[in-house]
Amino acid sequence: MSDKFVEAITPREENFSRWYTDVVIKAQLADYAPIRGCIVVRPPGFAIWEAIQSGLDARFKETGVQNAYFPLLIPESIFTREAEHIEGFAPEVPWVTHAGEEELQERLAIRPSSETIIGTMFSRWIQSYRDLPMLVNQWCSVLRWEKATHPFLRTTEFLWQEGHTCHETEAEARERTIQMLRIYREFMEEVLAIPVLAGIKSDREKFAGAVETYTVEAMMQDGRALQAGTSHYLGDGFARVLDIKFLGRESELEYVHQTSWGVSHRLIGALIMVHGDDRGLVLPPRVAPNQAVIVPIYRDDTRDRVLGAANDLRESLREEGLRIHLDDREEHTPGWKFNEWEMRGVPIRIELGPRDLDSDQVMLVRRDTGAKEPVSRSKLSARLEELLEEIQAGLFQRALDYRADNTYTAESVEDIRTIMERNRGFVEAGWCGDDACEASIKEETGTTIRCIPFEDLGEPGVCPACGKPGKHRVVFARAY
Amino acid sequence: MSDKFVEAITPREENFSRWYTDVVIKAQLADYAPIRGCIVVRPPGFAIWEAIQSGLDARFKETGVQNAYFPLLIPESIFTREAEHIEGFAPEVPWVTHAGEEELQERLAIRPSSETIIGTMFSRWIQSYRDLPMLVNQWCSVLRWEKATHPFLRTTEFLWQEGHTCHETEAEARERTIQMLRIYREFMEEVLAIPVLAGIKSDREKFAGAVETYTVEAMMQDGRALQAGTSHYLGDGFARVLDIKFLGRESELEYVHQTSWGVSHRLIGALIMVHGDDRGLVLPPRVAPNQAVIVPIYRDDTRDRVLGAANDLRESLREEGLRIHLDDREEHTPGWKFNEWEMRGVPIRIELGPRDLDSDQVMLVRRDTGAKEPVSRSKLSARLEELLEEIQAGLFQRALDYRADNTYTAESVEDIRTIMERNRGFVEAGWCGDDACEASIKEETGTTIRCIPFEDLGEPGVCPACGKPGKHRVVFARAY
Repeated sequence: MSDKFVEAITPREENFSRWYTDVVIKAQLADYAPIRGCIVVRPPGFAIWEAIQSGLDARFKETGVQNAYFPLLIPESIFTREAEHIEGFAPEVPWVTHAGEEELQERLAIRPSSETIIGTMFSRWIQSYRDLPMLVNQWCSVLRWEKATHPFLRTTEFLWQEGHTCHETEAEARERTIQMLRIYREFMEEVLAIPVLAGIKSDREKFAGAVETYTVEAMMQDGRALQAGTSHYLGDGFARVLDIKFLGRESELEYVHQTSWGVSHRLIGALIMVHGDDRGLVLPPRVAPNQAVIVPIYRDDTRDRVLGAANDLRESLREEGLRIHLDDREEHTPGWKFNEWEMRGVPIRIELGPRDLDSDQVMLVRRDTGAKEPVSRSKLSARLEELLEEIQAGLFQRALDYRADNTYTAESVEDIRTIMERNRGFVEAGWCGDDACEASIKEETGTTIRCIPFEDLGEPGVCPACGKPGKHRVVFARAY
Repeated sequence: MSDKFVEAITPREENFSRWYTDVVIKAQLADYAPIRGCIVVRPPGFAIWEAIQSGLDARFKETGVQNAYFPLLIPESIFTREAEHIEGFAPEVPWVTHAGEEELQERLAIRPSSETIIGTMFSRWIQSYRDLPMLVNQWCSVLRWEKATHPFLRTTEFLWQEGHTCHETEAEARERTIQMLRIYREFMEEVLAIPVLAGIKSDREKFAGAVETYTVEAMMQDGRALQAGTSHYLGDGFARVLDIKFLGRESELEYVHQTSWGVSHRLIGALIMVHGDDRGLVLPPRVAPNQAVIVPIYRDDTRDRVLGAANDLRESLREEGLRIHLDDREEHTPGWKFNEWEMRGVPIRIELGPRDLDSDQVMLVRRDTGAKEPVSRSKLSARLEELLEEIQAGLFQRALDYRADNTYTAESVEDIRTIMERNRGFVEAGWCGDDACEASIKEETGTTIRCIPFEDLGEPGVCPACGKPGKHRVVFARAY
């Protein structure tokens, strides 16, 4: 038994990317699978995903969305119906060609996204305006054969939710698109403590088949952007090719107006890269599977007394509704456990030894700041509640400050290039609205337009590429 | 607007199989998908699946099981490692051969079950006896290219959970196998109100790769058996081929002992076929997404008053923790709504009209018996709680009686054939233990040994096929 936590991780300053994968692997969030670009989401990672799922799912349902499950496989003839959609996804789609020994008559795509199969079902279920709105969501995995993969951020198979809705009018569909983006934003900011920039994508960056794509973009600690969630206004494009029609109030056949929206398990990657530090993961209390861990400290002669008290403590705190884990493993020292729970990001450590028992107190240690404080047993649950809120708010504020400190402005391509060389971050700049300018800026700086934010960033200024007056003030960044 | 519920269903007596699919389709539990043998689980069906998931998931976690997620695709070289396993599944496996335009170097199987891929990961994660037991579960879908399919009961893709555990000793693994079967049994009996016969499968019927398969078998209203859940003791067979070893307490390398266990969305099919009647689905209260539905009854001049009271009622009952839906749709008559909610199986209907308001009461109507009773507003929530328990217990008892009434004994193949011709059901008989006798009985009667029950069925009697003394008393039935 060693007191040393052997699995040290690469410091962020040394190599951010290696730091990230170290945290993923050593906090046992995920492991590489023996299939190209796939990961296994291990229990500590999946527990975070469950917390994300339950939080979002409740918010979706409050707005009338219901869950359903649609097939994994999509016949080629259905999948290829919407031209832009198939063009966007075709290079990434895995195809099933055989079942057992039998060669299939038609190839089946494994879903990269389910607009076509869900739309096909909508066309059967929707007859009248009385059937609208239709609001469904599914939690599932989808597959995209990506060239470069990265655990949680970009993997061949990933867990996500995809919401799909049909509406009577364009206005209602547009409203739903924004409503779901707002839910994502609130969830990410309030629960994940991740500040996000909400806005609309340029045409180049929008979803294959969408009229408009809205996005929430977060800044990681290396200054790169992560697209954390998207909500698409699909117009009636899929409705026309999939024949999703309804008898309207004026007894005329009309096409539905659709939306789709999704977030994936890359949110776990965002949690790591927004809050993590050189000792590992740091979880915001509202999404932490365990809000606090009790580590008992004892020798042979105090073992029973301390473990007994630790058990009682766990039970009483659980009864108060807190999510508490007691680490009573015999094979590890307290020091080893401290390191391990820090690695796993548990917000608060509760140390409990014989002297604490004598003075009827425990020692609380914050994961985010490392601050220690002794708290008397009678005040413990109130103090824990308070501290969890402090940590939650503190993490959000820290991330917000970080983003502000790493947001720059630029007037030329040279400006952007200099910022990217010196320090990655968000770059606010004008944009003339021309696709060619956007392409050349990407070519020369590696940045893309993350979004045209809803938030007012002030006067557009000039387009860095052509120097003409900007139509929009946008945010450029390198992205995951 | 019509007062008639147009979507009548086939009576069970006329054609049980058509009755079943009528209920599936008309209660909107599922719909056929445009992929061979696949269904779409629609929101009312998926809500039942969510209730099943959350109930089982909590029970699994109480025993230390944690959820994880493993890849959908399994490389052929890994999938084919365990000889019996691949032999059992090979004819049913869909193969991915291409991604985009590219032909893959190695074919990838879509998982029919995940023993091989999960075992491959276990072999990396397990080093010492301190890493044991390892207890993981995943909720996912799996695919099996079946020849004949039936909504929920046998579909190409189906939703399920698969638990996989590794243990230090055979005894501990065997104990876990039985523990999980017991959890299935308790859940099915206490929550789904479905009595099940628990026992062990004969070698012919066991899982591909298992040493022993345990099962819970339920009787449907057509007398056929449904295998509702299975739990397998895998021995160290997968451990040997996948190299899942650990350093034991005596510092020797040993193979782990494994289990796997699963239930699928066929439980929704079981709910339909055990409790349903000629008016549709009948849901036991503990698994019903809505325990009661409020149907307001009004004319133009009483509309506001009744709807206001109905809203208040819903809110106050929800605050009491009941799952209540208010059907305030304007486009349907009360009569239409009565029929629809009966079709969907909601346990209790609460009728509320102006005269009820005048006398400060509501009318309760039970879905299972059709019994009506007026209840004063002040006693409503207490009476609802009571009634929900009565319905829950009543459904279970009715199913138990049905099974008893349709269980027979046989001493010869002729006996079994006669029973099957006259009336399907469970047949208790002896069995000599010989594979050939089991095969010939199947050949001649269409029945299989559902299990050798744990429950003592008395003296074994003679084997119906060979006439020799039975080793076991077993249950024969035709099965889904």
